[in-house]
This record gives sequence, C-alpha cells and structure tokens, in this order.
Amino acid sequence: MRIVADVMGGDQAPVAVIKGSVMALERDAGLTMVLCGPKAVIERELGYLNAPRDRIEIVDAPDVIEMAEAPVTAIRQKKNSSLVVGMNLVAAGQGDGFISAGSTGAVLAGATFIIKRIKGINRPALAPILPAKRGGRVLLIDCGANVDCKSEFLRQFALMGDAYMRTVTNAPEPRVALINNGAEPEKGNELTKEAYKLLEKEPSIQFMGNLEPRYILSGAADVVVCDGFVGNMLLKSLEGASVFIFDSLKDIFMQSFATKIGAMILKPKLRSFKRTMDYTEYGGAPLLGVAKPVVKAHGSSNARAYSNAIAQLAQMIRGDVVGKIAQSLQASADQQ
Amino acid sequence: MRIVADVMGGDQAPVAVIKGSVMALERDAGLTMVLCGPKAVIERELGYLNAPRDRIEIVDAPDVIEMAEAPVTAIRQKKNSSLVVGMNLVAAGQGDGFISAGSTGAVLAGATFIIKRIKGINRPALAPILPAKRGGRVLLIDCGANVDCKSEFLRQFALMGDAYMRTVTNAPEPRVALINNGAEPEKGNELTKEAYKLLEKEPSIQFMGNLEPRYILSGAADVVVCDGFVGNMLLKSLEGASVFIFDSLKDIFMQSFATKIGAMILKPKLRSFKRTMDYTEYGGAPLLGVAKPVVKAHGSSNARAYSNAIAQLAQMIRGDVVGKIAQSLQASADQQ
Repeated sequence: MRIVADVMGGDQAPVAVIKGSVMALERDAGLTMVLCGPKAVIERELGYLNAPRDRIEIVDAPDVIEMAEAPVTAIRQKKNSSLVVGMNLVAAGQGDGFISAGSTGAVLAGATFIIKRIKGINRPALAPILPAKRGGRVLLIDCGANVDCKSEFLRQFALMGDAYMRTVTNAPEPRVALINNGAEPEKGNELTKEAYKLLEKEPSIQFMGNLEPRYILSGAADVVVCDGFVGNMLLKSLEGASVFIFDSLKDIFMQSFATKIGAMILKPKLRSFKRTMDYTEYGGAPLLGVAKPVVKAHGSSNARAYSNAIAQLAQMIRGDVVGKIAQSLQASADQQ
Repeated sequence: MRIVADVMGGDQAPVAVIKGSVMALERDAGLTMVLCGPKAVIERELGYLNAPRDRIEIVDAPDVIEMAEAPVTAIRQKKNSSLVVGMNLVAAGQGDGFISAGSTGAVLAGATFIIKRIKGINRPALAPILPAKRGGRVLLIDCGANVDCKSEFLRQFALMGDAYMRTVTNAPEPRVALINNGAEPEKGNELTKEAYKLLEKEPSIQFMGNLEPRYILSGAADVVVCDGFVGNMLLKSLEGASVFIFDSLKDIFMQSFATKIGAMILKPKLRSFKRTMDYTEYGGAPLLGVAKPVVKAHGSSNARAYSNAIAQLAQMIRGDVVGKIAQSLQASADQQ
C-alpha cells in the first residue's frame, strides 16, 4: 500500500509530517510512504531519523500552498506544490490514498478538481470522529466542506458516514441520526424536515431519527448527519466548551494549598481524560465522497497525531471505503 | 410594578412558580405579582407560605396548556388557560410583564398573537444568557424561536440583543458579533454572508464582525447573533459537552481511594463552578421583539430559578427594554 503525503501542509510541517510518516512506517510493515515536497528539505529531515528508506519515495514538489491563499486559485496556479503534485499521483493511480494537514479549503478544492468525486456524489464531505461516552466514537458529517446544503446532500452524507463506520469500526449496522432541534419527526428547519423524509425511506442505512446536539457525545448514534455550517458550529462549540471548562478547572485547582493537593492527586487521570476530548488524537477527518481515500489531518498535528491519521487512512484503503460508498449509492438507487 | 405569572407552566408548576413568586416579592418591595391559574390551587399553595398577600393578586384561569399540545391550536382553543389569560392581562395593560416556564412554542405563539410584536420587528427571538470567562455573560440571540431566517431578521436580533444588554448589564456599548464558521468577512453560508453586510453598515451597534463558536464562552462578545436553528444547536451542544465532561469527571473521581480523596477536597469548588455552567441560574430567556416584556423561564425551574427569572423580568421592565428596542429600530431607519 502506497500513501502519498503532502509534506508542506500543516502548522508543524515539514518536520511533523516526515517524523509522523516514519512512525507510521515503523507500525505498519505493509506501508510505503510517498513524500511530496521540496526534495532537499525532505532528504535533510530524513537524515536526522532512522528511517526505512526502502519504503520511502520522494517526489520533488518545490512550491507551497499557504494557509491564507484562495484555495481554488492556489490549486490552479501552483502546479508544482506538494499538494497538487501529490494529488495528481493519487489520481493517476500511483498512490492508494492521500493525506495532508494543509488548508482545509485547498485539500477540498484539490480533491474535487484533481481526484474528483465518486459517481453519484454531489458534494464530498469532511467527517471528523468525536469522542463519546465510555470510549465510544461518533462520526460527524459534514463538518464544514459544504456550508449551504440541499436535503439530497444530507442523504448522501448519511450513506458515506455509514460506509465509513461499517468499514473502520466493524460495527455491522451503524446507527445513523439526523442532527436536529428536537427528536420528533416534524421538528426542524426546511432543510432537516426534507432530509428526514429522505433518510426515513433510505433502505441501506439504520436511520434512528432526529438527534439533539446534547446527545452527540452520549454515544446514542454512530453517525450524525448535518449540513457543513451546522457541523462546523457544533465542532467549534464543543471545542469551546471543553476549553472553557478545563481552563476554569485550572483556576479552581490553583485557588488554595488544599485544592493544589487535590489537583495533584487527580492530575494524571485528568490529563488522560483531556486527551480523549482532543479529536486530533483520533487521527484526521476523512474526506468522503472523492474517488480515492483522502484524510485531512488536523492543521496543528504533531508527529504522533500525523502517524495516527496515516493509520486511519490505511484502514480506509484496506477496507475499501470508496468502493463501499459506491456500492451503497448503487444499492440505494436500485431499491428506489 | 405588576408582573403576571403563568402558574401552571413548567415541570415543577404550580409549586415552584408560587414559591418563586413569593421569594421574588420578598426581595423586591416594589413588586406586585399577579398569579394566573386555578384559584383554589393557588390559594392552597399560598396557605403553606408566609406570603405578603397585599402584593399578590389571583386571577382565576382553570385550563392548562400541556407541553405536548400544538402551540398555535392550544392558544386559540384554550382561552381560559393560565397562559392565555395572563397574556391577555399584559396585552390590556393590566400588567407590566409576563413570565412563564411553560412550553416554549406556546409562549412564543401566545406572545406573537396576543401581546403582539414591536412595530418594525419581523420575528421575536428567544435570547438566553450564557456564562463566559471570569464571571462574564453573553447573550445568544436567537436560540430557537425562528428556525428559518432571513438576513434582515438577524439584523433585528442584533439590535434587540444590543438594547437588552445595554439596559440590563449597564454596558454602554455591547460588543455584537455574528456567529460564523470563520472570522474573515467573506466567510459563511448564504445567510451569514448577507447578514454580515447588513450588520457592518448598521450605525446603532458596535459590530465586531464574525465570531467562531469556540469563542462564545471566552467573553469575546456581549451579544452573539445567529438564526434560531444554529442557536438551538449551539445551546444544546454546549449543554452536551458540559454533561459529558462532568459525567466523565465523576467517573474519574470514583476510580480509586486516592482519587476519592482528591475529589473530596475539590468538591465544594467544583459544585459552585458547575452551577455557573447552568444557564437556568441566570433566570430565564427574554423573548425580545414583542410589545411587552416577556421572560421564558426554563421548563425545569425550581423556586429559586423562577425567582431569578422574575428579577430579570423586573430589570427589563424598569430599564424599558421594549422602548429601547423601538428607539433602536427608529434610529437605524432614520440613518439609512
């Protein structure tokens, strides 16, 4: 299996990308990494590491797409950027999957224009995995790729999220829910009311109905579906609440000698819990709906987070998530 | 000042409403409470309390609107319900403000049809107050009254939220932000992009631009504006995150003898912090945009929460929030 990495994407690139790639190679003997980026930079970084060079290929790509660039323009103009070169390799079948921690807009634009969509999919969607109660996981789709959606897009998100969770978590029948402002079928805005009707009659998924956002982290569903604007709001508000609470706890712990003692006892456990709240721990967000497996690693990924995201991409490739999405679409079309 | 209370609205009604009313009377010598509900029930409950009867009026209203009833139908058919009778009193000028912990839909429908909107306001909005860093407060408008919005509604929400915070918090120039999926002006879906343009040129507010939901609780803004669907999602996801984290902490605290000791030391401080996270502590959510002050108390309000919500309504009345909203609309129309 050959995974192509955008060496220059991400806040800690290229170091975290190259280190993370080497960590992934150490964990997975069936893996070859194709590193796309400025050759001299990659060679130099690899020089510091004890890397399995027989499973590393370097493809020179001197240009870099910056975070602030307009995604579509950048993709069109910077033909020699690590992102464009890497995606072209994967599109041409010279790689089995693509990973980048670069700008979400650029990854999305590149995947849509270069790797292209699965036939029948209107809009690819970004689907991060969130923590749920007692070590569970829940896939949120879409979290920001499509800020204005039609109900049909949401139906496709449901099929894609279902295919991903079936493959990667081995849950034979993921419970799929529609994020809404009430549990009753008649609740919602125009979009969710229409989407409910589509999902209700969708034969190829286990649709459990509407779910209010307060239950996302409770583990009540395996896949939660919403438009990209709402998904982005949810992701960022969960993040905000978590930061607010942990910051406030820190203030409480520092209030007196007694609270410091109490905090000291609890610290190791709290730290590991805080880590489960951090969605970068679970790798990246798969970009579902494009014709090859693509994972968008978190922009702030360090080497460990990046290697987790590579492992996630490897799972997507081995489980043929792309093929399963295409099959789901077909099965759904046949039955209607 | 005469405040009219819907005695039969709320999970803990009528007891919490009547007790809460008496608590509010004890705290506020300038207050008279008009209790609407089944007379015999109110008389009996008051009999258990040491209540200042000279400042309590009872208006008999034998019917009850249940949580599950379709709001508009209930308002039209149950003319003798505590909610309809109470709202009619306020609409007729026999009360200065109205409070209910009953069904949000019924309060909204009743306020719109009976008390009616302020001239120039398209849609009343529900605006709960959330905790922010270091004891701050932030008003979220709308949190669910209007699930499908036009950009003009959002402009009006901004004016209403601004008028409320100026009056109730004595902040002379509240910072108003538009909730969006990125800070840059060009970010957003169709609705927020249009709303940005309206808010940007709105002379009567301090518009600080877009705000991502992760910063809502950071205290970066005093008023945060969004459509009611998104607001409902945000409110419920903040709630969900808070429940998830506190439940997980509880699990951590019970893990061993040592963690139990640590937890015991921290417990009082944690409990008071958890209380600041509970938005019912701040009273209720004002329903802004209707022609008389209305507060929707949380459905699960106990007597203390209810008395806080009455105190909040008294502030709205004394500060003439309704008048200030009308003035803002006028000033804005004059300048355009």
